[in-house]
Amino acid sequence: MAKLQHGLFYEEARDYICARKKQFMIKITLPDGSVRTYEAGVTALQIATDISAGLARVAVSAEVNGEVWDLTRPIYTDATVKILKFEDDGGKSTFWHSTAHLMAEAIEYYYPGAKFWVGPPVENGFYYDVDLGGVKLTAEDLVKLEEKMKELAAQDNPYIRTEMPKAEAVAYFTEKGDEYKLDLLQGLNDGEITFYTQGKFTDLCRGPHIPSTGLIKAIKLTNIAGAYWKGDERNKQLTRIYGISFPKQQQLDEYLKMLEEARQRDHRTLGRELEIFTFDDDVGPGLPLWLPKGAAIIEKLEALAKRTEKEQGYVRVKTPHIARESMYLRSGHLPYYAESMFPPMELDGNKYYLKAMNCPHHHKIFSAVQRSYRDLPLRLAEYGTCYRYEQSGELFGLMRVRSLQMNDAHIYCTKSQFEEEFMKVNELYVRYFKIFGIEKYVMRFSKHDPKKLGQKYINNPELWQETEEMVRRVLIKSNLPFKEVADEAAFYGPKIDIQIWSAIGREFTIATNQVDFAQAERFDLYFTNEHNEKERPIIIHRAPLSTHERFIGFLLEHYAGKFPVWLAPEQVAVLPISDKYLAYGRQVRDTLVKNGIDATLDERPEKIGRKIRDTEVRKVPYMLIVGEKEQEQGTVAVRRQGQGDQGVKPLNEFVEQVLYEIREYK
Amino acid sequence: MAKLQHGLFYEEARDYICARKKQFMIKITLPDGSVRTYEAGVTALQIATDISAGLARVAVSAEVNGEVWDLTRPIYTDATVKILKFEDDGGKSTFWHSTAHLMAEAIEYYYPGAKFWVGPPVENGFYYDVDLGGVKLTAEDLVKLEEKMKELAAQDNPYIRTEMPKAEAVAYFTEKGDEYKLDLLQGLNDGEITFYTQGKFTDLCRGPHIPSTGLIKAIKLTNIAGAYWKGDERNKQLTRIYGISFPKQQQLDEYLKMLEEARQRDHRTLGRELEIFTFDDDVGPGLPLWLPKGAAIIEKLEALAKRTEKEQGYVRVKTPHIARESMYLRSGHLPYYAESMFPPMELDGNKYYLKAMNCPHHHKIFSAVQRSYRDLPLRLAEYGTCYRYEQSGELFGLMRVRSLQMNDAHIYCTKSQFEEEFMKVNELYVRYFKIFGIEKYVMRFSKHDPKKLGQKYINNPELWQETEEMVRRVLIKSNLPFKEVADEAAFYGPKIDIQIWSAIGREFTIATNQVDFAQAERFDLYFTNEHNEKERPIIIHRAPLSTHERFIGFLLEHYAGKFPVWLAPEQVAVLPISDKYLAYGRQVRDTLVKNGIDATLDERPEKIGRKIRDTEVRKVPYMLIVGEKEQEQGTVAVRRQGQGDQGVKPLNEFVEQVLYEIREYK
Repeated sequence: MAKLQHGLFYEEARDYICARKKQFMIKITLPDGSVRTYEAGVTALQIATDISAGLARVAVSAEVNGEVWDLTRPIYTDATVKILKFEDDGGKSTFWHSTAHLMAEAIEYYYPGAKFWVGPPVENGFYYDVDLGGVKLTAEDLVKLEEKMKELAAQDNPYIRTEMPKAEAVAYFTEKGDEYKLDLLQGLNDGEITFYTQGKFTDLCRGPHIPSTGLIKAIKLTNIAGAYWKGDERNKQLTRIYGISFPKQQQLDEYLKMLEEARQRDHRTLGRELEIFTFDDDVGPGLPLWLPKGAAIIEKLEALAKRTEKEQGYVRVKTPHIARESMYLRSGHLPYYAESMFPPMELDGNKYYLKAMNCPHHHKIFSAVQRSYRDLPLRLAEYGTCYRYEQSGELFGLMRVRSLQMNDAHIYCTKSQFEEEFMKVNELYVRYFKIFGIEKYVMRFSKHDPKKLGQKYINNPELWQETEEMVRRVLIKSNLPFKEVADEAAFYGPKIDIQIWSAIGREFTIATNQVDFAQAERFDLYFTNEHNEKERPIIIHRAPLSTHERFIGFLLEHYAGKFPVWLAPEQVAVLPISDKYLAYGRQVRDTLVKNGIDATLDERPEKIGRKIRDTEVRKVPYMLIVGEKEQEQGTVAVRRQGQGDQGVKPLNEFVEQVLYEIREYK
Repeated sequence: MAKLQHGLFYEEARDYICARKKQFMIKITLPDGSVRTYEAGVTALQIATDISAGLARVAVSAEVNGEVWDLTRPIYTDATVKILKFEDDGGKSTFWHSTAHLMAEAIEYYYPGAKFWVGPPVENGFYYDVDLGGVKLTAEDLVKLEEKMKELAAQDNPYIRTEMPKAEAVAYFTEKGDEYKLDLLQGLNDGEITFYTQGKFTDLCRGPHIPSTGLIKAIKLTNIAGAYWKGDERNKQLTRIYGISFPKQQQLDEYLKMLEEARQRDHRTLGRELEIFTFDDDVGPGLPLWLPKGAAIIEKLEALAKRTEKEQGYVRVKTPHIARESMYLRSGHLPYYAESMFPPMELDGNKYYLKAMNCPHHHKIFSAVQRSYRDLPLRLAEYGTCYRYEQSGELFGLMRVRSLQMNDAHIYCTKSQFEEEFMKVNELYVRYFKIFGIEKYVMRFSKHDPKKLGQKYINNPELWQETEEMVRRVLIKSNLPFKEVADEAAFYGPKIDIQIWSAIGREFTIATNQVDFAQAERFDLYFTNEHNEKERPIIIHRAPLSTHERFIGFLLEHYAGKFPVWLAPEQVAVLPISDKYLAYGRQVRDTLVKNGIDATLDERPEKIGRKIRDTEVRKVPYMLIVGEKEQEQGTVAVRRQGQGDQGVKPLNEFVEQVLYEIREYK
């Protein structure tokens, strides 16, 4: 560690400067708007302790002027500071990143000479890519590492940040013979290099980290995989070890339980078993084919959307799946978005692209007819299928696909109509959440970053402020749970990403609701206002039911494949006790079908027990058992999925009940 | 004409041979199966005369062994002979081709030195491309030419066929200085060159022609256009003159009347005026965007299809609009059909194509699940959008487009199920014809040509015979009007093209119904039969409602834009007499909408007369006028489109009436 001592030069120099500045105090602004005064060099941990001992205990890192920092890093200037707990996004990633270092320490303990590439936090946990010099890890090895990590965590070693001159850093890893870190160093500049040390492990790392290992109370190493260095298969294959950690054992237990439930509810497995969708090599990856039962669910979702949208004054349109290059040059999707689009087709000297979004086509429909203020708001809806290019490694079941059937609509309105329209869209979301039993959801309000105007965001600061203010007002007024996130808006306006949680507590980002004050200009869209002047409409992009692909993927997990009656592709299965009652069974089935109920008849010459078991596998909401008594009395013996025997009912009463459930989205 | 004499060499030689053969008689088989014996050298005209003097009078040409011949051409071998009248397809084309020659004679009369390129019959009439050496024709010139043609027709000059050695033909046109005919001669071989002469005009021509000009009783020259030689814009522009002719004046009168009505019902004009669809340069030619009213019609057509198809046991599927090259190599569409497909997109080292048909995707859904005989017939339906490349010059409104939303389905069945399934499809057609008031229709039964087995048709003579026999049986059994056409089947089986006639008597080929016994093999589709063996299904391709594009184009003309109540995008317009009755009007509108009726309210501060006139322009089936009396009594004053005032009715009674009409497809 001798070499590291030199690194202190910078810190010493800063302490010296700091000591001179101590006469100056700094202002710390907290999230509630309150301002506290501290001596320069104060740490977020000290601030947290000032706020409450309880907060200091659960604090893992801090947001300082929008950047996530170590709790123990000195603050020398005025700053806004938010203490992050594990529950915060920035908190989780710090926690998991620190656990990755802890794992590295355990690996170095058992496998001295192991060389480390990168070890980032991911959506659920972390991983580290390691060169173990040919050693193959087994499940037992993971347990061994896990135990060592727990032991090291209990030592409560602090994570120590050290600034490091580039030459020193290079010398350190050259002596260590670590070509991976030397490769990383090549891309870094002098003055921005830091090392982190906890216990006996030191790593080149940008940070931030939690104060000490003692916060890590529960650890699970979940998986071992191979990973080519830099993702390039011509390079050496490294060992990737995945894990997750929590500040409480209970959280890990819940997570593992959720994982097990999610495994049982895996939409890919359920999709195959229930014959919802399939993939085919001749069609291509990421392009699901919807089997009859999947298409039936699609039809029902579309019927819901069409009904509610019609009630709310939407009109439907239908547009081609392709357009010329000029369309996307006009919209600005080309060249910036080209990577996410399918490559063009060359035709008659023109380039044609598969559409990756429906908006440009809808704008063309807006402008195809002369519009006046009387025609607004104009709400154009379409279940348009879009095509987006995702790398094949990114594709995942229905969740990451290349063909997307979107519950899309674009609302063209005047500025004075905007708030009401935006509000109605939010209400539509909540109405859908209720129908699907989605109890937990958050509106993630993504705003622009004033520093990136003209680059990442269209350069119109007044309009940004105005529309973001309008969006905020609507969110507050509609009393929806929301959080604000800076620097995540769309190019052309603020947006709301809707995060929902499935029945087993898994999070999905399902839909967006976007404000657009730029496309009207680009497409020269206008209406004639009351004063007979041309005026640009504001556009709302919205897709509450997301894409069929993602939403049905979510629903498969959410319902564990047991769709509610209204949405089930097969709502009622009629099972005659024996062939003698086939004719009556047929009569029952036909009555149901005539009433618009999706009913089937099991005509196989099988025993009733077998029929029931086979129907259960298909997760059909209702089974009707019919035999002698039922035939004589015109009744049906009802079995409800998950609830068992419901007794014998007259057929017409049962029909009424099912129709009621369908109507009420039960 | 001296040079032409030499051409007789062949005919003389043949006459000589013929004279020697006269001891041999030939057998002529007529369409009714009867056989007559003639001396070799008999003409179809002689045969027609034998059958009846009436037939001989209206005969224009003859089908000899499947080829259309001059009536006056000698027949030297056994043959099947069908006398063609003007009404037959082959008859019409002969008649119009001969009229093109007549027009050429008139042109040569007025414009000596005119040079002729080609003058073929077309769907309605004929044209001739002429080099007039810079002369521009006017409408008056057309009248002048028309008069001269009538005069020449009245001379009743015979069309005389002369065989011609190539050298003679070249010498003839070299002397005449006609570079166009010399160009045509380059592509012809000695022994296959014939000249035709009528009156003072001689042309290089394959024929056939009518016996003499006297048959042409009514002539109309309809249009003058420019046409580049060989369709290449780098070549000289020729004058193309269009015309049409008939054996009776009354036929021409009717045709011109139909043309005028068709002009008023032009689907492109109506589509724009009624805001049904639009085209946009940024989207591309041949790619219609469906405006809200067009999309509403689409929804209603799809609802009809879904309802009737569900009743008949179809299930719906949904498939991507693209697939990999391997899919179309498997189906055989590549490379043979490549010209009609959009060019490929190159992605991850694969080629992806926009689908030009849905069948391969449906086959993949068939094979995604293990199928048994119990699952058949499996009827997979989808309103899939396909993309086909048509040259931009061929595009025409909604009738020739590049994006096609097909009312598609594929029925997979066993051989023993085939007849019933095929019959049910035919019944579906007839049911639809009834709903749309299509009174005239013909099933065109397209068969294979045994001579082209292994080239144009899959080489399985037994299956061809068997399936064609099955199709014929079904057609006869269902008592449908049909005609059989040789050598027009699909590659993989016989098909039925459905020809329908619009209200004004224009013909449309709207849908097909195809038998397919080849694709199951290519896609390795099978089911397990009763004996637990693998067996290939037979596939029926069907699309009774055609594509939305073509069918709505047809309906616009058929209904002259006045859609029946059930199909109208705007079914009822509520017109308050003044602003005082707006609230009641709103109530009426809302009641209608709540009942699923597409109703609008005219909220403009306009006079009632203006409101009525504007609604009439939109061709809305019902207008409800509401004022003081209606408001007091809860009634509406009903005006039916095209029928005027229907009196005052209680609102609920009117609602019931409209719902009845929608239900009954009125």
